[in-house]
Amino acid sequence: MNVAILAGGVGGARFVRAAVAALGPEAVTVIVNTGDDERFHGLFVSPDLDSVLYTLAGENDARRGWGLSEETFRAFEALRRFDPQAWFQLGDRDLGTHLFRTQVLAGGGTLAEATRSIATALGVRATVLPMSDQPVRTLIETDRGTLTFQQFHVRERSQPLVRSVRYDGGESARPSPGVLEALAQADVILVAPSNPVSSIAPILAVPAIRSALVNAARPIVGLSGIRGGAPFRGDADRFLTGLGVEVSPVGVARLYRGWVHGLVIDDLDVALAPSIGALGPRVATCDTALDPLERGIAAVERCVELATRCAPTGR
Amino acid sequence: MNVAILAGGVGGARFVRAAVAALGPEAVTVIVNTGDDERFHGLFVSPDLDSVLYTLAGENDARRGWGLSEETFRAFEALRRFDPQAWFQLGDRDLGTHLFRTQVLAGGGTLAEATRSIATALGVRATVLPMSDQPVRTLIETDRGTLTFQQFHVRERSQPLVRSVRYDGGESARPSPGVLEALAQADVILVAPSNPVSSIAPILAVPAIRSALVNAARPIVGLSGIRGGAPFRGDADRFLTGLGVEVSPVGVARLYRGWVHGLVIDDLDVALAPSIGALGPRVATCDTALDPLERGIAAVERCVELATRCAPTGR
Repeated sequence: MNVAILAGGVGGARFVRAAVAALGPEAVTVIVNTGDDERFHGLFVSPDLDSVLYTLAGENDARRGWGLSEETFRAFEALRRFDPQAWFQLGDRDLGTHLFRTQVLAGGGTLAEATRSIATALGVRATVLPMSDQPVRTLIETDRGTLTFQQFHVRERSQPLVRSVRYDGGESARPSPGVLEALAQADVILVAPSNPVSSIAPILAVPAIRSALVNAARPIVGLSGIRGGAPFRGDADRFLTGLGVEVSPVGVARLYRGWVHGLVIDDLDVALAPSIGALGPRVATCDTALDPLERGIAAVERCVELATRCAPTGR
Repeated sequence: MNVAILAGGVGGARFVRAAVAALGPEAVTVIVNTGDDERFHGLFVSPDLDSVLYTLAGENDARRGWGLSEETFRAFEALRRFDPQAWFQLGDRDLGTHLFRTQVLAGGGTLAEATRSIATALGVRATVLPMSDQPVRTLIETDRGTLTFQQFHVRERSQPLVRSVRYDGGESARPSPGVLEALAQADVILVAPSNPVSSIAPILAVPAIRSALVNAARPIVGLSGIRGGAPFRGDADRFLTGLGVEVSPVGVARLYRGWVHGLVIDDLDVALAPSIGALGPRVATCDTALDPLERGIAAVERCVELATRCAPTGR
């Protein structure tokens, strides 16, 4: 059983961890959103890749929700003496990752190559791929102007009103090496319970990935990150509302229309199953909380089980 | 009494600290070597500017000899997981400086602007200027190939045989704002006991600075960093030997010929005074150790006193 997982954000990382626990690392290839990547103070930061890598390495800070455990912020505190406006917190241990990745890119290496080296050094055995080696930037039009995802999410604390979202560079981006192969060879393609607009949509902004998903020969099943009218964490509600999509699994199904064959939603939302089914995908329910790990494993298994019941042609 | 000081390296920083203690910060403008500047892992590192700034701020690590006190190396240790070959140690607090400076440069600001902001934040009241905002790179031809100063000094521990030294970019570099004014307005121009080849010569590789020094209307007095046949610290001997210049204050005088009017040497080397005088400059002696601070102050006072006895025309 090989799975390919589309993922981004912290919810994505937790789902991937559960998938690796359920299926084994060799069975899992993760295709990670890079639309949030941004340079800070000269360093290339790739938050979603880091979340997946740190989580799979067991080095993520579960309480803080991002970055590494046992982290300190001495460099950032020193920086703030010079730039009191600096707002993107960089942990000292985390800086090691950014320094290395920046160096690889400066030397002509690719994001995929840097990612592979980091994964190896961290002992991550699942395959972790950036969606593309070319830059794709999620840009959010808001009532406070055009913002990158980090500006919106971290600096502005997700408070601005979202008007529209675009994925700059998407049209000319190519999948990174191994992405199309993973999608073609997977028995099941899973969509992590990540923000549909800021974590999953950027991946589909790469034309060859979108095409591979729309024409997939194997079932694609998503797990809704929205339950009972709100996201588990993060700011998906701000995005869905801004785009005029309801903050519910029905909204998620609407955004995934045309390429997702099954959607697992929370038991709480069972009443929404008919509305989702009307949009195309088959529906299953479970407890969609991913913590503790046993629940996450059960959710992954529910997704895989639903996949057996929805052939691509079933959409 | 206004002084302008040419300086680089740790010896230079100590001399500047003594000058500020002797004359007051408002009296001192430091023109700092930037030939050692280099990008590491994407970050712009300016070791000599940092040495001067940290030392004047009282935040230098006196025991280690470089970087900040109370330093940790968590980011560097994390980096080494990914790149075991990484050799340029970056302290966590020190990284704050590099992140800020890199950000200023990436935003179109100059090295001089970044330096001014850092000095202000650190409470440094003396004027600290990079010799130039344009890149000048000290490149060392050795038996192990062409090396930057940091590659030679840090990575190769000054072991390669020096064959020649050049200052790439020097010919087209302009003095940073304030440098020529400081040289024109100084009552005395002092040359710190820095490495003549790797710290002082790069400053003179900037044509307008060389011209201002050669034609200076005020006395220029240097302090020899070589005593009793060896440098106080650092690897000046490797450079002097490589260039076929004797490792003594006479060698220093030879390298400074044509623009330095006075040279203060160590009491130990008093026998060399006639040989130095034959090359042009007037000579005075003192205890040239710069630690503790009282000795450094005495050395600065000796330089200033010698300056009163050597008019520029006296060369």
